[in-house]
Amino acid sequence: MIDTKIKKFGDGKIINPAGYDFYTPEDSCVVFKAVFNNPQDLNSEPPVFFEQAGPREKIWFDPAKVKAGIVTCGGLCPGINDVIRAIVMELHYWYKVKDILGFRYGYEGLVKSFNHPVMNLTPSSVSDIMTMGGSILASSRGHQDPEKMVDYLQELGVNLLFTIGGDGTLRGAAKIHAECERRGIEISVVGIPKTIDNDINYIQRSFGFSTAFSEAIKVIEGAHIEAIGAKNGVGLVKLMGRHSGFIAVHATIASKHVNFCLIPENDFDLEGPGCFLEKLEQRLDARKHAVVVVAEGAGQKFFDSEAMIDKSGNKKLGDIGWFMNLKIKEYFAAKGKEVNVKYFDPSYIIRSTPANADDSFFCSFLGQNAAHAAMSGRTGMVVGYWNNVYTHLPIELATLERKVVNTEKSPRWRAVLASTGQPAKMLNNANN
Amino acid sequence: MIDTKIKKFGDGKIINPAGYDFYTPEDSCVVFKAVFNNPQDLNSEPPVFFEQAGPREKIWFDPAKVKAGIVTCGGLCPGINDVIRAIVMELHYWYKVKDILGFRYGYEGLVKSFNHPVMNLTPSSVSDIMTMGGSILASSRGHQDPEKMVDYLQELGVNLLFTIGGDGTLRGAAKIHAECERRGIEISVVGIPKTIDNDINYIQRSFGFSTAFSEAIKVIEGAHIEAIGAKNGVGLVKLMGRHSGFIAVHATIASKHVNFCLIPENDFDLEGPGCFLEKLEQRLDARKHAVVVVAEGAGQKFFDSEAMIDKSGNKKLGDIGWFMNLKIKEYFAAKGKEVNVKYFDPSYIIRSTPANADDSFFCSFLGQNAAHAAMSGRTGMVVGYWNNVYTHLPIELATLERKVVNTEKSPRWRAVLASTGQPAKMLNNANN
Amino acid sequence: MIDTKIKKFGDGKIINPAGYDFYTPEDSCVVFKAVFNNPQDLNSEPPVFFEQAGPREKIWFDPAKVKAGIVTCGGLCPGINDVIRAIVMELHYWYKVKDILGFRYGYEGLVKSFNHPVMNLTPSSVSDIMTMGGSILASSRGHQDPEKMVDYLQELGVNLLFTIGGDGTLRGAAKIHAECERRGIEISVVGIPKTIDNDINYIQRSFGFSTAFSEAIKVIEGAHIEAIGAKNGVGLVKLMGRHSGFIAVHATIASKHVNFCLIPENDFDLEGPGCFLEKLEQRLDARKHAVVVVAEGAGQKFFDSEAMIDKSGNKKLGDIGWFMNLKIKEYFAAKGKEVNVKYFDPSYIIRSTPANADDSFFCSFLGQNAAHAAMSGRTGMVVGYWNNVYTHLPIELATLERKVVNTEKSPRWRAVLASTGQPAKMLNNANN
Amino acid sequence: MIDTKIKKFGDGKIINPAGYDFYTPEDSCVVFKAVFNNPQDLNSEPPVFFEQAGPREKIWFDPAKVKAGIVTCGGLCPGINDVIRAIVMELHYWYKVKDILGFRYGYEGLVKSFNHPVMNLTPSSVSDIMTMGGSILASSRGHQDPEKMVDYLQELGVNLLFTIGGDGTLRGAAKIHAECERRGIEISVVGIPKTIDNDINYIQRSFGFSTAFSEAIKVIEGAHIEAIGAKNGVGLVKLMGRHSGFIAVHATIASKHVNFCLIPENDFDLEGPGCFLEKLEQRLDARKHAVVVVAEGAGQKFFDSEAMIDKSGNKKLGDIGWFMNLKIKEYFAAKGKEVNVKYFDPSYIIRSTPANADDSFFCSFLGQNAAHAAMSGRTGMVVGYWNNVYTHLPIELATLERKVVNTEKSPRWRAVLASTGQPAKMLNNANN
Repeated sequence: MIDTKIKKFGDGKIINPAGYDFYTPEDSCVVFKAVFNNPQDLNSEPPVFFEQAGPREKIWFDPAKVKAGIVTCGGLCPGINDVIRAIVMELHYWYKVKDILGFRYGYEGLVKSFNHPVMNLTPSSVSDIMTMGGSILASSRGHQDPEKMVDYLQELGVNLLFTIGGDGTLRGAAKIHAECERRGIEISVVGIPKTIDNDINYIQRSFGFSTAFSEAIKVIEGAHIEAIGAKNGVGLVKLMGRHSGFIAVHATIASKHVNFCLIPENDFDLEGPGCFLEKLEQRLDARKHAVVVVAEGAGQKFFDSEAMIDKSGNKKLGDIGWFMNLKIKEYFAAKGKEVNVKYFDPSYIIRSTPANADDSFFCSFLGQNAAHAAMSGRTGMVVGYWNNVYTHLPIELATLERKVVNTEKSPRWRAVLASTGQPAKMLNNANN
Repeated sequence: MIDTKIKKFGDGKIINPAGYDFYTPEDSCVVFKAVFNNPQDLNSEPPVFFEQAGPREKIWFDPAKVKAGIVTCGGLCPGINDVIRAIVMELHYWYKVKDILGFRYGYEGLVKSFNHPVMNLTPSSVSDIMTMGGSILASSRGHQDPEKMVDYLQELGVNLLFTIGGDGTLRGAAKIHAECERRGIEISVVGIPKTIDNDINYIQRSFGFSTAFSEAIKVIEGAHIEAIGAKNGVGLVKLMGRHSGFIAVHATIASKHVNFCLIPENDFDLEGPGCFLEKLEQRLDARKHAVVVVAEGAGQKFFDSEAMIDKSGNKKLGDIGWFMNLKIKEYFAAKGKEVNVKYFDPSYIIRSTPANADDSFFCSFLGQNAAHAAMSGRTGMVVGYWNNVYTHLPIELATLERKVVNTEKSPRWRAVLASTGQPAKMLNNANN
Repeated sequence: MIDTKIKKFGDGKIINPAGYDFYTPEDSCVVFKAVFNNPQDLNSEPPVFFEQAGPREKIWFDPAKVKAGIVTCGGLCPGINDVIRAIVMELHYWYKVKDILGFRYGYEGLVKSFNHPVMNLTPSSVSDIMTMGGSILASSRGHQDPEKMVDYLQELGVNLLFTIGGDGTLRGAAKIHAECERRGIEISVVGIPKTIDNDINYIQRSFGFSTAFSEAIKVIEGAHIEAIGAKNGVGLVKLMGRHSGFIAVHATIASKHVNFCLIPENDFDLEGPGCFLEKLEQRLDARKHAVVVVAEGAGQKFFDSEAMIDKSGNKKLGDIGWFMNLKIKEYFAAKGKEVNVKYFDPSYIIRSTPANADDSFFCSFLGQNAAHAAMSGRTGMVVGYWNNVYTHLPIELATLERKVVNTEKSPRWRAVLASTGQPAKMLNNANN
Repeated sequence: MIDTKIKKFGDGKIINPAGYDFYTPEDSCVVFKAVFNNPQDLNSEPPVFFEQAGPREKIWFDPAKVKAGIVTCGGLCPGINDVIRAIVMELHYWYKVKDILGFRYGYEGLVKSFNHPVMNLTPSSVSDIMTMGGSILASSRGHQDPEKMVDYLQELGVNLLFTIGGDGTLRGAAKIHAECERRGIEISVVGIPKTIDNDINYIQRSFGFSTAFSEAIKVIEGAHIEAIGAKNGVGLVKLMGRHSGFIAVHATIASKHVNFCLIPENDFDLEGPGCFLEKLEQRLDARKHAVVVVAEGAGQKFFDSEAMIDKSGNKKLGDIGWFMNLKIKEYFAAKGKEVNVKYFDPSYIIRSTPANADDSFFCSFLGQNAAHAAMSGRTGMVVGYWNNVYTHLPIELATLERKVVNTEKSPRWRAVLASTGQPAKMLNNANN
């Protein structure tokens, strides 16, 4: 059974200066499993709970002595600036924290020797940043030495550290937290998980995802127009999704124009009877055009296994979009059939967009709840969201494994098959 | 305790022709309450469940004998066409239902004597309708005689009826269902609740709401620009929300530019110490500009109580936006202070928008699940959504009372107060 | 014959510090009339020329001694910030002018006793303002005493004054210029005409107009959706256009969904045979829905002649949109026919939008050319645009009379009639 | 001197059935040159005129005997459907032409043996197509045999042919026209020039261009966000522009965020003192981020001269965007400097967009004027636009040479240099 317990420095003793009308009870929680095959199953296994986020009536840190720091790491994602703004506004106006630092260029900014200037974040400096995509703090990839980072935090007197980033970033945050524990110093380390792919386990939704798939369907619309604009037109769109195809799946369901949706969770072969290229050919024969969406992590088996590792320790992926662009052309050329493939690779366009309204709303709460959690003395955790409630989640749990599209039993995947008309399996092995 | 049991004509006996890889178990359910003050509270009261929606392995109706009908009633809302499309596609491609009728102009279309033409809905006729706002079937307000409607359904041989509409529409659907029961005929009546205000009880989210508040923040941005563009500029925006201020609340939280958010759930006075006009004046004195958002149902106490009732039986509301426009001008004129109020009334602009990606995604599942429910022989129900699962809900439960913004204990309302800086109460009575 | 001569303090003597590769010749010009009934007509009347705008090789003012001021007056319009930005960037980077002031709240900002703070405009303060609608300087309506304004300009040492505003503003600029002449001081007064209505004579296009009619067609699309969404649905849209219906005309032609386009230049009657209401009824009888666009200055004959005058001296208009909303409802009520009018009044939404790409491009040149003109010692003029060339125009000429839609002989109006199918005349008099 | 004379079958003898209130005089014209170094230059050379487009009072073809055909060729471009719609609506409603054919897949559709189905175009089939990007007729590249095409036109009885396409398409149209002349048959061949690059000579503006550069600046905004989001971030955007850099130039001026704008008209070197890579390095050293826009036809000298020719006879270009992506990375890698290049290739996204309002407006007139020209018996011509007037242009003139950005003496290019701050020349030769 998973361990959902959140670390804290102790029970809060200071009255929350925010003066809110109501506070989240200290032990408020949300149940993990809400859906059952039938009502009798409710108590068939011991329930798991996640702690609920929110302001606590008693807090741990004395606002007058708080110095907060914010850092953003990894690739851009819609909503980062919204989260930064929410943390700053909550700390400043409600907790009366006056010292808030912005570290530049990811974890590099936490290492003194890089000499990156540290920004002062104030309500007026962050007031309008939500209208802009990206991160006002800028970002970098790659790990830094936890000791050096804690050295600098101590030198600056930072006692709340907010890290906005993905898997690698959260692992880095766990190391910073461990180093703080080792030194016996009270620095609250609170993460806000950033993954445009929506692939963090035990978290129902990650910020930027709504914006991303919204932007993706605009591109798919273009691919559809190109596809119907030429004989045997194929609009081929590569979307984000290194390990999980949620963006491709949601965009497919929302756009209605996709005929093939290829994701990392669903193995496929290109050549052979019943496989992708044959199915594409059948589609073109029947309708003269097709739209293909492929998540960047799909079909990685087609590439050399000795892939490189990037600075964050992520496996570098083979470019499946470009690869399929070539393979489709080759296949039809070999058959002497005309095909007009138009290849779309919109990843940077999508991820640099400002957050849409839903994500902006969502990021406000993520940032505020991060501030609440840190001020209450919680640490080694991230802010999550489960059954529509904001939660606290141990970093370890958030980075344990990835959330993936269930291609066996989820309504989502069934909806993809229904909308595209693609076969459930496009594989060469005997069982299909 | 609420009754969540769904009526059905009997247990399905026909193998679902869709041939899906997996089906929702017949009694699959989702628990109503997932959040507790502490883990020990889990079993403090008997749990309530909602039936989960989804395709069943055995269905009730023989597809070859099914004739389906769809009707849309009440005001426009983003996503209606997406729902229509999803019902048609699911019935046609997966259940092999070939006869699907579209009734025009709401319940009028179900009364033969109106002579409205009935449309044939096919995949090709609905294929691209999701790109268009509104309803391809058009709509009307007002009740019609259930006997006449059932007469016409019987004459046409319709045995599945899908009603897309709000409160009044669902009550109408309940009457049609009752009339069918009285006659002992098997017509499945399944509603898809439409309320841009997001105010249906036991339903976590209603379609069109995401689009609506997204559009609303664009208008609020304009109001902000007008407000800062003139001395003592006031951007006053009336938003939808007859009984519940969800659109105003979400738009306020997402946009960040709102200084006063007035909703039906939170009583306020205009004049008097600590009341709205004084607070607005203080804001203008301090900052020279202000943005005010008011839900259409707010402040109805200022109007004559003998309000008219519209054709759907809804109380007609006094125009609080226009009223406040006047009151603000009067107040400052009386004080000899310049004020520049710019009034925005964007309701029709917002509601005629096509669904955004999130709503489009959501509507696909609502429509598909409505088709599943009807084919499985369920009736007298609506398709809902709870704890992120699509559900079946008895019509009575859906229309019992409205969901409102909790202004005492919800993070949402706290976020409004935090973002606007407005006082929790702007009332004249002694307790403030 | 019109007088197009531009005043200047003298021939430039200082080498332009911009160091451009080429300069506009001092007397470069564009011919007024380019279209003729046949080639022989070319010299049938003496040609009129406008001076071409652009940087001159020799300038009048010594950059080291220049102090510039910018003021924005009247209603908001897309592109104001783009113009401000362009003036500041051109003066700062190319002419090396370091003192640029922004006067707040229109001409009030030029009157010392109002005590409005004066802003310092620098490249970094204006760098991103084009992404925002409105005016960073804010605006006001109304005239101020030219003597007081020149007093303050002299006190501050301003010798270049840029006024961004409409008709009234330009008249005010002419008075400031006259007062400077009277005092014998060299303050260059250069206007950039702002009229969202596109109604300035001898100027082919005014900034903000492209954005305005682009936004307008989105609203018309909503009106169309509402119109087809109800029985006898009428989408009624009031658009800007006090004296000239260009926005209504362009939006009608671009959107294709408009059935009646009513503008100030084309008189019409409501009641009587062949008049508007009868024609609307015929349209509804035939097609069940209609979209009506009305410019705010249309149909003013229906209002009391003793209209008020606003602070800028503009006649206040009766609200023709609301009036027609009522009249249409009354007409059909009297006939016992159902009609569903949805009224759209999007003016503030439209005018607070940021400039679109075309306007942003256009505003860059307007602002740069204003800077060039002022530095070259020209004054009492505005920057115009004619036959696709930026021009200098005496203020008097720009404010002499308004440009209107030619409803007798223009392809534009013919295109409106072709697209709407409305009669050329909807009047009661005998000649129709 | 250029020959601007338009061919026609003879003077119109049939009263125009449109019944317009006014017609364009038969010989109406617009002067070619409107700008002069000074007024005295007006008559220094004999004036050139273009014939003005518009409906003529007398037409050549008897509407009852007209069968029209429309074909679209080459790459997609915003506005094609608007042009198709305008032709159909004008012919149908005003000239009462009832037979209008749509040929599918470009010139292939005019060759019978391809067996492409011919579409019937009616007001209801084209009514809403302007909301969609692309071409409802679809397109193809490549030439077809003029004899076969005229054979099929004769067999079908087509006597008006409208060709919407670029350079190659217009040359094809000229051949069809020549073949008709050779056979002595009266088929009016009228082209509507399509070039998203805006590079047709003697035509002030081509349709789709406004939409294209509007979309381009959205992508540039993303590139800017990516550039500032990483250390030494470079946002590199490839834009359309095979021979002329108008899209890159306009997007640069409108967006303000571009630091280097590279176009075919302005030669540049990558390596060497004062050349691109050194200048980019200086920019990054100073500001840590940069945005680079490169037109697809720029820097072709870097590629092997034996380039292939595509099916339309256009030279295939080396991929300068990808090439520069590599070169920038190599350069900084060799120096041991970190650089983060994000490469954007949005061409298909841009060109598949529906027309914006300005282009929609423009396309309406292009289509209508094409219909007028053909009905009046003109042939071998295209519809153009000059000094804000729609014109007739001999096909030969339109395809004679390309319009390019004047990098010596145009305000446009000066504005690019002013906005980017890039050097006028980045070349290795001695003169720089």
